[in-house]
Amino acid sequence: MYLRNAWYMAMWAHDLPTNALTARTLLGEPLVFLRDERGVAQALQDRCPHRLVPLSLGTYLPSGRVRCIYHGLEFDGSGACVHNPHGNGRIPPAARARSYPVIERHGQIWVWMGEKESDPARLPDYHFLEAGEGKLLSVQDHLIMDAGIDLIVENLLDLSHVSFLHEGLLGSSATVAADIMLEQGERELTVRRWMPGVPSPELFDIVLPRKGELIDMWFDMRWQAPGALTNDVGATSPGGDRQRGYRIQGAHILTPQTATSTHYHFAAALHLPPDHDHTRNAAIGPELSRIRRYAFEAQDAPIIQAQQRTILNAAPEVLTPILLDIDAGPVRYRRMMAALLTEEHSV
Amino acid sequence: MYLRNAWYMAMWAHDLPTNALTARTLLGEPLVFLRDERGVAQALQDRCPHRLVPLSLGTYLPSGRVRCIYHGLEFDGSGACVHNPHGNGRIPPAARARSYPVIERHGQIWVWMGEKESDPARLPDYHFLEAGEGKLLSVQDHLIMDAGIDLIVENLLDLSHVSFLHEGLLGSSATVAADIMLEQGERELTVRRWMPGVPSPELFDIVLPRKGELIDMWFDMRWQAPGALTNDVGATSPGGDRQRGYRIQGAHILTPQTATSTHYHFAAALHLPPDHDHTRNAAIGPELSRIRRYAFEAQDAPIIQAQQRTILNAAPEVLTPILLDIDAGPVRYRRMMAALLTEEHSV
Amino acid sequence: MYLRNAWYMAMWAHDLPTNALTARTLLGEPLVFLRDERGVAQALQDRCPHRLVPLSLGTYLPSGRVRCIYHGLEFDGSGACVHNPHGNGRIPPAARARSYPVIERHGQIWVWMGEKESDPARLPDYHFLEAGEGKLLSVQDHLIMDAGIDLIVENLLDLSHVSFLHEGLLGSSATVAADIMLEQGERELTVRRWMPGVPSPELFDIVLPRKGELIDMWFDMRWQAPGALTNDVGATSPGGDRQRGYRIQGAHILTPQTATSTHYHFAAALHLPPDHDHTRNAAIGPELSRIRRYAFEAQDAPIIQAQQRTILNAAPEVLTPILLDIDAGPVRYRRMMAALLTEEHSV
Repeated sequence: MYLRNAWYMAMWAHDLPTNALTARTLLGEPLVFLRDERGVAQALQDRCPHRLVPLSLGTYLPSGRVRCIYHGLEFDGSGACVHNPHGNGRIPPAARARSYPVIERHGQIWVWMGEKESDPARLPDYHFLEAGEGKLLSVQDHLIMDAGIDLIVENLLDLSHVSFLHEGLLGSSATVAADIMLEQGERELTVRRWMPGVPSPELFDIVLPRKGELIDMWFDMRWQAPGALTNDVGATSPGGDRQRGYRIQGAHILTPQTATSTHYHFAAALHLPPDHDHTRNAAIGPELSRIRRYAFEAQDAPIIQAQQRTILNAAPEVLTPILLDIDAGPVRYRRMMAALLTEEHSV
Repeated sequence: MYLRNAWYMAMWAHDLPTNALTARTLLGEPLVFLRDERGVAQALQDRCPHRLVPLSLGTYLPSGRVRCIYHGLEFDGSGACVHNPHGNGRIPPAARARSYPVIERHGQIWVWMGEKESDPARLPDYHFLEAGEGKLLSVQDHLIMDAGIDLIVENLLDLSHVSFLHEGLLGSSATVAADIMLEQGERELTVRRWMPGVPSPELFDIVLPRKGELIDMWFDMRWQAPGALTNDVGATSPGGDRQRGYRIQGAHILTPQTATSTHYHFAAALHLPPDHDHTRNAAIGPELSRIRRYAFEAQDAPIIQAQQRTILNAAPEVLTPILLDIDAGPVRYRRMMAALLTEEHSV
Repeated sequence: MYLRNAWYMAMWAHDLPTNALTARTLLGEPLVFLRDERGVAQALQDRCPHRLVPLSLGTYLPSGRVRCIYHGLEFDGSGACVHNPHGNGRIPPAARARSYPVIERHGQIWVWMGEKESDPARLPDYHFLEAGEGKLLSVQDHLIMDAGIDLIVENLLDLSHVSFLHEGLLGSSATVAADIMLEQGERELTVRRWMPGVPSPELFDIVLPRKGELIDMWFDMRWQAPGALTNDVGATSPGGDRQRGYRIQGAHILTPQTATSTHYHFAAALHLPPDHDHTRNAAIGPELSRIRRYAFEAQDAPIIQAQQRTILNAAPEVLTPILLDIDAGPVRYRRMMAALLTEEHSV
């Protein structure tokens, strides 16, 4: 069961070409994305209403239309059949592919798959991923995890796993004692962790020469329903001013592919302090990209996927896990999502 | 649900050797085919009645018997257990593998899997595939499509898709305006299309040097329940006499392997006009074979299989496709098959 | 449905290292095996009670503990959580991985997965696999068959298949007339076959130079519920004294992995007669190992697996196989297992 009246990120804008069809399965439904003749992104159900062949197997026409490969019916970006090449050319009124509202912003393509009218005010804000002064950007990346979205959100809202699963790379056992602060909003939740006087993880080697001194570190993660997360991680010298430290804003944007697989879109911006030495700048973006992909693909994914397999294979009655103090974020998330789903289905 | 009281083509005769067992799954049931000591084709359930091991894993004995690999029980072509090598050799009366009526004709092996007595008069006639004067033959070919038989029959009875899916190879957009004629018989249906003054498709390059002139073309497809189709395609110079044109009779013989996979047997005969130049004859059969296999395997199969996947994955309520004028053949087919199935199950 | 209050062999002792975690699925449940700080084998449910990640993905600590890879919780060999590295370190009482009684004996590791108290007296005795005077040992081997345990026990209790499936290697058609004797105990069953004056199978070529003489052979198989089998095969010169013949005791120890796949552990001891020529001894163990593995992996497994596939694919009503005299062992086995399962579930 998905929360449908919500924006879901479909793909990075650079993954949608202007002259081709792009198929993507979201919330268990196959969609086809295209840019119309003005370049505006459109999303249609990936299924010709005539014989149910995927439209994405067809041809993108320069007019911004899709031609079905099987019988040559043509559809515009709104999903309307606008050409039947056969016989008298009559087009039945029902000859429509369902279309979905799309917004392209800050290099991202978002789609609304619910029955209620789409609400642009609900779109999560990732303007920090735009290029600008005083920051360096990672690549805009994507992977598919073979696990349901809940397990991945829980992973991200649970900062404590960083000390173990990402030990050395993103954190260390020195950080486990840090307090966890929760802030809950209407459809959002933020988990904060402040870790003064801890060893610097590998992540900061890309900007901070490691000389054995301890650093002050913060690690905040904000979730906006249903799958838009942003983390804010930073380091200063002990007792230093945050404005003079290095700060990474990371986007983790999750969209269910199916109930047990999830699109994981990620990218980050590194904010540079005023006294930053710009000599190595060209190398820093790629290094940041590489470390983040490694952490998510090689460290998180195998564990979350194993967790998913356990849940799928085990009898339901044995699946009531114990709770620790560190589970405050995940527990709150589960409760908020349950309330949102109840609200959507009771309307 | 299969129509069971009917002949289904099991394989080409050349695919059943005289000294070996040949396994094939038809209508969801594993069968083993063999030739008895007289060379007569026989079909048995592919399951030893003792321990349920496939008989096809066993040995073909020169006496035309099958010996089970597990315990050495021997069965003759009628399915009777005729030798128990153990103990006192007693054979329980129930020691039989179910056998099915088989007819071998015109290079094809047909089997009847229904409960009613088999009716040889119902056997579809493919005598045109026999070698003879004034014609050239393709190879007798076979592939498995991962789609149910209905989707493939609909594809074949829907001549309009030729203009798009097989554009250039078998037809072109110039042919889409052609009228479609239906003729319905008791257990058969013929769809006819007459296309005067159209460009010649690649198919006829094998016999007609392409000089840019238009041709008159016909394209008829006859279906006999449940899966025997024959097409009759031909070309003449504009206004020419059909007797002086080139005519291809094609066999498309479909047998369900399972509910979602189908054996597709195909072969064709090219009838030569009196003034045919015989110089290139040796090359024409292979060219005809290659073009047909390409059209079915590389063009039809991926589309029909994608259609099948869509149907399997989508919720049933979204699967009521729209109908166009070109769907007359498929719609009539569905109705006739539904009536035949109702009749079989109400008896 | 498994008989749970019983010992099942989990693995050979040499497959459980002292400094690593070993995962194995038994009776459909994932378990993790380890040796505690004293080297004693322990078995836990392979699932952290916190977030359900497999413990076997974690780290084996020198203290004999398991550390979960995800959040660093530590468990001892009894399954108790003994360290929570987070926050105040409190450990909820429910933080336990279920543990199972384990016995290590004669190079085998056995586990009891039932609810009733484990009964060491029920452990099958395989002391003959220990090295000793006057015998040679095969390797201790393991394979997984993709078939349920019942089909494999039936195969082993059905000595008649040896004449066909293992013709030449372990038996021959000359042995099919041999009488089959059954002896039934409380939770065990023995099938005996005595075959005087038969050709020597390849199996005995490893010790008996084949000179064309006939031999006297016996072949006994003992089953102890639910999956421990021992065969006792031997050969003497015709009319010879068994004490002066070659005798092989073989262990065939079966444990369900799932309902349709089974761990098959096997090993054998060859008892040498007093006048044995010891020259070739170094080669005999490997030869015995190779022949046995070949018989089970290349001859039995494909047939039993095909039988399993037939049963899974066929409609239940067609699966009432016929019975021959040779099925006395398998039939008795089915009846005894049904009684044991009824007893376990009625308590």
